[in-house]
Amino acid sequence: VLLYDSSISGNCYKVRLLLAHLGIDYERRELSVTDRSDRAEVIGRDNNPDLRVPTIVLDDGRPLAESNAIMWFFAEGTPYLPDDAYERAQVLQWMFFEQYSHEPKIAVLRFWMHYDSSPHTEEEMAPLRAAGNNALAAMDRHLSEREFFVGDRYSIADIALYAYTHNADETGFEPGANVVAWLERVRSQPGHVRLSD
Amino acid sequence: VLLYDSSISGNCYKVRLLLAHLGIDYERRELSVTDRSDRAEVIGRDNNPDLRVPTIVLDDGRPLAESNAIMWFFAEGTPYLPDDAYERAQVLQWMFFEQYSHEPKIAVLRFWMHYDSSPHTEEEMAPLRAAGNNALAAMDRHLSEREFFVGDRYSIADIALYAYTHNADETGFEPGANVVAWLERVRSQPGHVRLSD
Repeated sequence: VLLYDSSISGNCYKVRLLLAHLGIDYERRELSVTDRSDRAEVIGRDNNPDLRVPTIVLDDGRPLAESNAIMWFFAEGTPYLPDDAYERAQVLQWMFFEQYSHEPKIAVLRFWMHYDSSPHTEEEMAPLRAAGNNALAAMDRHLSEREFFVGDRYSIADIALYAYTHNADETGFEPGANVVAWLERVRSQPGHVRLSD
Repeated sequence: VLLYDSSISGNCYKVRLLLAHLGIDYERRELSVTDRSDRAEVIGRDNNPDLRVPTIVLDDGRPLAESNAIMWFFAEGTPYLPDDAYERAQVLQWMFFEQYSHEPKIAVLRFWMHYDSSPHTEEEMAPLRAAGNNALAAMDRHLSEREFFVGDRYSIADIALYAYTHNADETGFEPGANVVAWLERVRSQPGHVRLSD
């Protein structure tokens, strides 16, 4: 497996974390997330119409894009994706929540504050901060009576949400106590690797 | 099945279109997309942490949120979701593309232009128009040698992308010829219903 990767992208980290749990070897090819000028040439639009990382290419040459779709592909038939039809749909519910209501707020704010060379006004950042807080509050409520997001087991729904929640404090977010306890449960899973590993 | 619905929401339309194909009866409960003040009371945060439509409640009381997760649940085991593991991941790839790179641009611009009571500046709208054009261009390239988005068959990936593409011309977008031909193929599927049906 070839992974078009970024060492600072939480979306890429999801894939690396799952592959570490599964013990699957892969080749990392690091791409810049600030200078994207070579993306069309390196990744290719047939491999990923959006030219984003992560993109993977299987050993037989077939590509796959979108972090949560890539995780689904590798998690199928493993303990990281439930068998039950309703629980599988719940995993998808939380992964779509992550990509719609969480990542575009919390990850974008992180990028603006730590990596983007162009300045952003407080007026631009305030709506992202408010929406990010809403997403974290929804997670905290959901975890008030649960150990993990779906069923009673760690799954790719947890990995998807962990990626940009575990370091949200570095951009000024303050996750609730249930989220903080869940972050620790995720970190204690066998085979866990860190973003910087 | 109970569907918390909106007659103008493309996300809700996805669910209605799939359920029409499958011949599944359901009860529609119409909610406003402009006045959301009663959402917590009507939908309930346990049913959908984001309080968005569509949300469904199965006959046994179990809820499910996120349009594409709901479609996955009902499409499993039907011709609208492939059996092959790689094709299933491709369906997810295009559904995550839709929710990240398409809907937040094209649907949001549609909402601003046709339904939102607060004005939006051209400066606010321009980035959404550019990103929406990028998404439509990616779709057009992908369809240049294909009839449908995944494999050689109509699937929930097509339904997901049809929802906010079929009327994108009403907000000034100009989909390419391959997209226009694909829209017609989607409309000609047995059991097709319109957004306004």
